Amino acid sequence: MKIDGTHYRTIWLADDGRAVEIIDQTKLPHEFTTLRLETAEDCARAIRDMNVRGAPLIGATAAYGICLALLADPSDAALDAACALLGATRPTAVNLHWAIAEMRAAVLPIGTQARAEAAFARAAALCDADVETCRMIGVHGLSIVRGIAEAKPGRPVNILTHCNAGWLGCVDWGTALAPIYMAHDAGIPVHVWVDETRPRNQGAALTAFELGGHGVPHTIIADNAGGHLMQHGHVDMCITGTDRTTATGDVANKIGTYLKALAADASGIPFYVALPHTTIDWSLTDGIAQIPIEERDAREITHVTGRAENGEIVTVEISAPGSAALNYGFDVTPARLITGLVTERGLCAASREGLLGLYPERRG
Amino acid sequence: MKIDGTHYRTIWLADDGRAVEIIDQTKLPHEFTTLRLETAEDCARAIRDMNVRGAPLIGATAAYGICLALLADPSDAALDAACALLGATRPTAVNLHWAIAEMRAAVLPIGTQARAEAAFARAAALCDADVETCRMIGVHGLSIVRGIAEAKPGRPVNILTHCNAGWLGCVDWGTALAPIYMAHDAGIPVHVWVDETRPRNQGAALTAFELGGHGVPHTIIADNAGGHLMQHGHVDMCITGTDRTTATGDVANKIGTYLKALAADASGIPFYVALPHTTIDWSLTDGIAQIPIEERDAREITHVTGRAENGEIVTVEISAPGSAALNYGFDVTPARLITGLVTERGLCAASREGLLGLYPERRG
Repeated sequence: MKIDGTHYRTIWLADDGRAVEIIDQTKLPHEFTTLRLETAEDCARAIRDMNVRGAPLIGATAAYGICLALLADPSDAALDAACALLGATRPTAVNLHWAIAEMRAAVLPIGTQARAEAAFARAAALCDADVETCRMIGVHGLSIVRGIAEAKPGRPVNILTHCNAGWLGCVDWGTALAPIYMAHDAGIPVHVWVDETRPRNQGAALTAFELGGHGVPHTIIADNAGGHLMQHGHVDMCITGTDRTTATGDVANKIGTYLKALAADASGIPFYVALPHTTIDWSLTDGIAQIPIEERDAREITHVTGRAENGEIVTVEISAPGSAALNYGFDVTPARLITGLVTERGLCAASREGLLGLYPERRG
Repeated sequence: MKIDGTHYRTIWLADDGRAVEIIDQTKLPHEFTTLRLETAEDCARAIRDMNVRGAPLIGATAAYGICLALLADPSDAALDAACALLGATRPTAVNLHWAIAEMRAAVLPIGTQARAEAAFARAAALCDADVETCRMIGVHGLSIVRGIAEAKPGRPVNILTHCNAGWLGCVDWGTALAPIYMAHDAGIPVHVWVDETRPRNQGAALTAFELGGHGVPHTIIADNAGGHLMQHGHVDMCITGTDRTTATGDVANKIGTYLKALAADASGIPFYVALPHTTIDWSLTDGIAQIPIEERDAREITHVTGRAENGEIVTVEISAPGSAALNYGFDVTPARLITGLVTERGLCAASREGLLGLYPERRG
């Protein structure tokens, strides 16, 4: 997507072919800067510190991390070490492990001399596939938005989203936001309620930034406000991303997603989850019991970073000093609260049968 | 309650009898300062700017605002003007209008010479009554906490609360927090999950501050986290305050309360609301349709104030510049999601029959 008229992806190979470059998302929305990652360690740190975030982009960054490890040392031992290092960065999103497994399978049979080159080719293919996957999620999700728009001609479709499942969380397009961009581009009037998404404010900082960059009308709200808006008919549909989806249709997404799904259910508002097949963990059947939920630094709750009036970027403490804080990164929305899953293959029910209908090769 | 060993109320008559003093709650938790309010205008500004907040304390401050107006000019016209000024400060909490009506009824029959004195006496009595009311809410709520504690001996009762319905929101004791203080003082192990309560952070700034000051174990969480904690059995009960309660048991409380009530209902966790009779609006029967919801400055969402590392208090912008924000202050939790109401007269169902059982004088 575009920033100030220039097309960007979130990750790309450096001109010298010996590093990847990323948009440093910890600096947004205040500064647009890029970071050069030269080693697997750089990539692991960027994932852990959330310079990159979003399940698909984490996977893409891990894939390039393996390329960079093999560029320095193409041995089996170096490959194993890079896979272990990158696999341990964040626990909830499963695309990470999917991408690492894909890379490993692609390079292991190849002689060490040719490994790095093969790895870079595979990583580039994974990124291109992610872009196409997101584009198709947009195409399928567009039909939902169009259907709602046709039922309220001339008035905007009000869509609530939580966290950032836009192009900044993927390689391009996004998952939950892809249908919104396509609707906007197709001339369908849309307006997005952007949950600010505490504690890291990915909504207010990233989703609002990218929607604004594309000219999509939107309004930032406190995470607390969605229920009230839904009670009063100000939301036509909700759509979010997911970091891990069970074979039965439960989804782990940014903490607070579950509360919005409860409110949508209570008000009879459709709640959709957009996902590439790479977020499906076919081995799991009970999201609440089985999906590991990351616990992050309490400082993300007690402190906030922003731009002071003098332009300086400042971190301030906002909580009572001495009070402890606890910071879970994700929660699980059970399938019963989800109206439908939107994947690159189409729309399905959030259930085993629904998913197997789209992915019949998983039957058996 | 105590701060650094000294007992405070949230509002008190100045030594010279010509002003009231308040704790400036906009400065907490970073600075403990008091403000002197000398006129009705000062009181109105303090309510509007949230130097004082919380339904009972807003009422008490308005009561003293009328005293100060009458001290300057005891005429009927001055009384009317003060009532109008103070009544227009904030729309949702009904204690404000109750306190103004009480004051007006107390002073109107009295000759202008004696009005100011009578007003100060009545305001002091209202404050003392609020303290006793909150103490009794604590006594009745304690039985709920004790019951849960007896079912899990040796382990703390985990109580989730939203916003600040503690002594800082009242004159002393608090509503939702009064049972918690009493349980703690009675040696019952309690632990409080404190919703930070965006956008103004009354949980992280005020509730954590006062619980810490009293030595009650607590943990600050993002507003997004309560559903996850409830899904995993980490919450034994929820209790909040209310700014307006309908005759049928719907409650308007800080935005986001409704989402926690939905989550508690989904996980079978009891959800209580604590209130003095002064928050009941006997004229209303449908909270969602009838209770006016305050819309506040969007800047409360886009900007945050806190303490920088150098000790300075700094306001920083946290949202994407140029993005609009919308800031509703309250939402309505329908009676069906409320396990019980805790008032100064005891516990009742959140229903017309439940409330009339405690307030039979309202029948007919």
